[in-house]
Amino acid sequence: MFVNNPLSGLIIFAGLILQNPWWALNGFVGTMFATISALILQQNRGAIAAGLYGYNGILVGLLMAVFSEKGDWYWWLLFPNVFMSMACPIVSSALASINSKWGLPVFTLPFNILVCLHMVATGHYNRYFPQVLIKPIASTPNLTWSDVNVGMLFRAVPVGIGQVYGCDNPWTGGIFIVALFISSPVTCLHAIIGSASGVLSGLALASPFQNIYDGLWSYNSVLACIAIGGMFYALTWQTHLLAVACAFFCAYLGAAIGNVMSVFGLPACTWPFCLSALTFLLITTDAKAIFRLELANVTYPEENLKNYKKMRKLERMDLKDIQISG
Amino acid sequence: MFVNNPLSGLIIFAGLILQNPWWALNGFVGTMFATISALILQQNRGAIAAGLYGYNGILVGLLMAVFSEKGDWYWWLLFPNVFMSMACPIVSSALASINSKWGLPVFTLPFNILVCLHMVATGHYNRYFPQVLIKPIASTPNLTWSDVNVGMLFRAVPVGIGQVYGCDNPWTGGIFIVALFISSPVTCLHAIIGSASGVLSGLALASPFQNIYDGLWSYNSVLACIAIGGMFYALTWQTHLLAVACAFFCAYLGAAIGNVMSVFGLPACTWPFCLSALTFLLITTDAKAIFRLELANVTYPEENLKNYKKMRKLERMDLKDIQISG
Amino acid sequence: MFVNNPLSGLIIFAGLILQNPWWALNGFVGTMFATISALILQQNRGAIAAGLYGYNGILVGLLMAVFSEKGDWYWWLLFPNVFMSMACPIVSSALASINSKWGLPVFTLPFNILVCLHMVATGHYNRYFPQVLIKPIASTPNLTWSDVNVGMLFRAVPVGIGQVYGCDNPWTGGIFIVALFISSPVTCLHAIIGSASGVLSGLALASPFQNIYDGLWSYNSVLACIAIGGMFYALTWQTHLLAVACAFFCAYLGAAIGNVMSVFGLPACTWPFCLSALTFLLITTDAKAIFRLELANVTYPEENLKNYKKMRKLERMDLKDIQISG
Repeated sequence: MFVNNPLSGLIIFAGLILQNPWWALNGFVGTMFATISALILQQNRGAIAAGLYGYNGILVGLLMAVFSEKGDWYWWLLFPNVFMSMACPIVSSALASINSKWGLPVFTLPFNILVCLHMVATGHYNRYFPQVLIKPIASTPNLTWSDVNVGMLFRAVPVGIGQVYGCDNPWTGGIFIVALFISSPVTCLHAIIGSASGVLSGLALASPFQNIYDGLWSYNSVLACIAIGGMFYALTWQTHLLAVACAFFCAYLGAAIGNVMSVFGLPACTWPFCLSALTFLLITTDAKAIFRLELANVTYPEENLKNYKKMRKLERMDLKDIQISG
Repeated sequence: MFVNNPLSGLIIFAGLILQNPWWALNGFVGTMFATISALILQQNRGAIAAGLYGYNGILVGLLMAVFSEKGDWYWWLLFPNVFMSMACPIVSSALASINSKWGLPVFTLPFNILVCLHMVATGHYNRYFPQVLIKPIASTPNLTWSDVNVGMLFRAVPVGIGQVYGCDNPWTGGIFIVALFISSPVTCLHAIIGSASGVLSGLALASPFQNIYDGLWSYNSVLACIAIGGMFYALTWQTHLLAVACAFFCAYLGAAIGNVMSVFGLPACTWPFCLSALTFLLITTDAKAIFRLELANVTYPEENLKNYKKMRKLERMDLKDIQISG
Repeated sequence: MFVNNPLSGLIIFAGLILQNPWWALNGFVGTMFATISALILQQNRGAIAAGLYGYNGILVGLLMAVFSEKGDWYWWLLFPNVFMSMACPIVSSALASINSKWGLPVFTLPFNILVCLHMVATGHYNRYFPQVLIKPIASTPNLTWSDVNVGMLFRAVPVGIGQVYGCDNPWTGGIFIVALFISSPVTCLHAIIGSASGVLSGLALASPFQNIYDGLWSYNSVLACIAIGGMFYALTWQTHLLAVACAFFCAYLGAAIGNVMSVFGLPACTWPFCLSALTFLLITTDAKAIFRLELANVTYPEENLKNYKKMRKLERMDLKDIQISG
């Protein structure tokens, strides 16, 4: 969730335990083994310490537990969990080799790949590791606007933020918002805008209300809006608007990917976030106000903005020097 | 359709109105908003003026109307149309960043991505924006060679050219042929060869005759044959044969992609054209007669050929100079 | 199968004839036309002579015959066989253009693409070229550990090696092992380890026993283990362990891809091998013992190791020279 702050990390973990201790345990195992595997493979120490290998691991462990049909405390699940977490740094490293040609991050692609890999390899009918049944839509849902619960729509905003970690508890979502605010207010703001965009998109595309209430339309937009709004682009008015556009595009893409994946019995995971954010980061433009940071300089929105302003100031001074000396 | 000529463009638009004014309106809205969005994103002015952003927009608007289950004059459709058209330059720009590493154009990939995105996000059972029902083949079609109508097979050639814009009216196809001939006779010739290759492939692969008559086997081959035959390669005998091979490969690929996409309720769009043409443009060879033009120098076949001949002449003169001075 | 040795090649071909002469004939036709097409396209002569274009051709011809519903000696099948084999060098060349940006080989990707293309373009219900019916799993298989036949599990190891060429005869597999041993003992060892990893993975993921016995869990792991174990990486303890990890990852991926492809009525082919080996070759690491060879220097494990040791020795001598002169 782009939070580079130990306190925020702890709060998020507390939120996970509040939601479901078994899921939190699986997330912990995932982080640990992903980090161990990264150490064995002698990946970059700085990146490991910053948790770049851990955050895909936590998601892999967590979501494998969330989508398991066997319910909580099915201890055998730890085996594929350990295996997949250890494969995390391998997939991360391979994807980084590809994406670095365009200066792009890998986001949560390793998590998406590995969770989908596990789920589709086993499937709903597996004897040892059955997955929750997910089926394509086969009839028109019955929607009447009088049924809509406006309170639940507002509640969907924090729920959507919680769904980033597969949690449908609004209090968990609230805790995540606090953690985000501590880490970076800009990130927190974009998370809320992103979640609201998802809710609006769900209404516009005639989604069953329950899916909107559960935050399923929001969590990808949350991540996409954070990534574009100040994290990988320096925050200006233009990139702020781009972030809002990306949040809506991401929600649309989420519906599309959800339907495609359901054919294979898979959830959308955070594929929509990854693909929409990567698309918006690949834009080339003549506009100076849309400035993509180099991957090595990405920290958090406030710091990014400071560095960007410094850079622009130096540029202008150079220009003046040239004019004077000219 | 690689036509860089205002008169030809007007004739094509007239053909669209003849086919269906509601589709033409949607195409117009698509072009307009794609262009506006490209201006907002400060994309290259030359490329915008040449219509490089518009041509994906017209296809997005048009095909969203063609595949809508709600029929003509369903005004709400303009909302997703505007949204998707405005997303066009973003996707185009992102794809161009990727493809430019190999000096490849984006063709109609943004159109394919965005129309499929809209169609699969909503689907056949959507309340607001239902799509035409497309299903995988589930039984062997009954084909008897005595049923084949040779006249209809010949008629399929212009119909296939019309299907590039989703039009199944042979007169519309005829108008397009005239427009192509005005713009470039070489393009026109390859369009006809491509369309005929599609018809032959349909017969060879045991397609139901109606699909062949409707030009569904042809339109991708038309585009692929034009692209390889003189447009992105300088026209020589070798590249002409390559273009014919590409047309057949594209028709085969079209059947494959059509079957894959039908699982998701999607049409093949022009994916087969994009993928086959990109494959044939990625070939590296020691043959001097297969010369791929740089993307910036691509205009139209006749002009490309002139430039290529000039270049070869200069090369030979340089060689002579070296021999003399040697 | 990474065998660069005419005698081993002949033995493998003998194994094919033993399995099924019609399949062998199709393989031969595939090789021949792939090579002819490569010559026409003026591809690199050295690569053609080394059989780099032929090996995808043999697989294309072979597997098109294996998966044809019409059974043996259906002579019409030679038409698509010739067409697809001739498309082989085109797809190979295009993929090589992409993969060479990362110094990666194309492996059997052209074969996978072309066989899947043919199979999904025609499908089970095609009148001329029907394919074997492949369907997604729709119920939990009944597994009782008392039913397991340990002898058959051991027999699955050579069968799995035979399945690389679609052969389920253990004697054919045995012949292939001999051919591999003649060519390179290291390759032979990794083939056996890979096949065994596949068997173990099948048991761990609750596969129906028959699939394991038939070697369907093994053949991808065989290829992946060979590729990583000494072929594209210099053989050290670290890369040997990486090869074992890759074999397990590949088996897991094989189950996943098999399930995804079955939705389209397709077999997994060797997609799992290609994707897992490419992933493991894309890893970047600070570990000096994981050394990827340049594509042009890849020969066979024993030779690769000799070159690698020579290089390391030279490096150390340089270091000493610097220390002395320092």
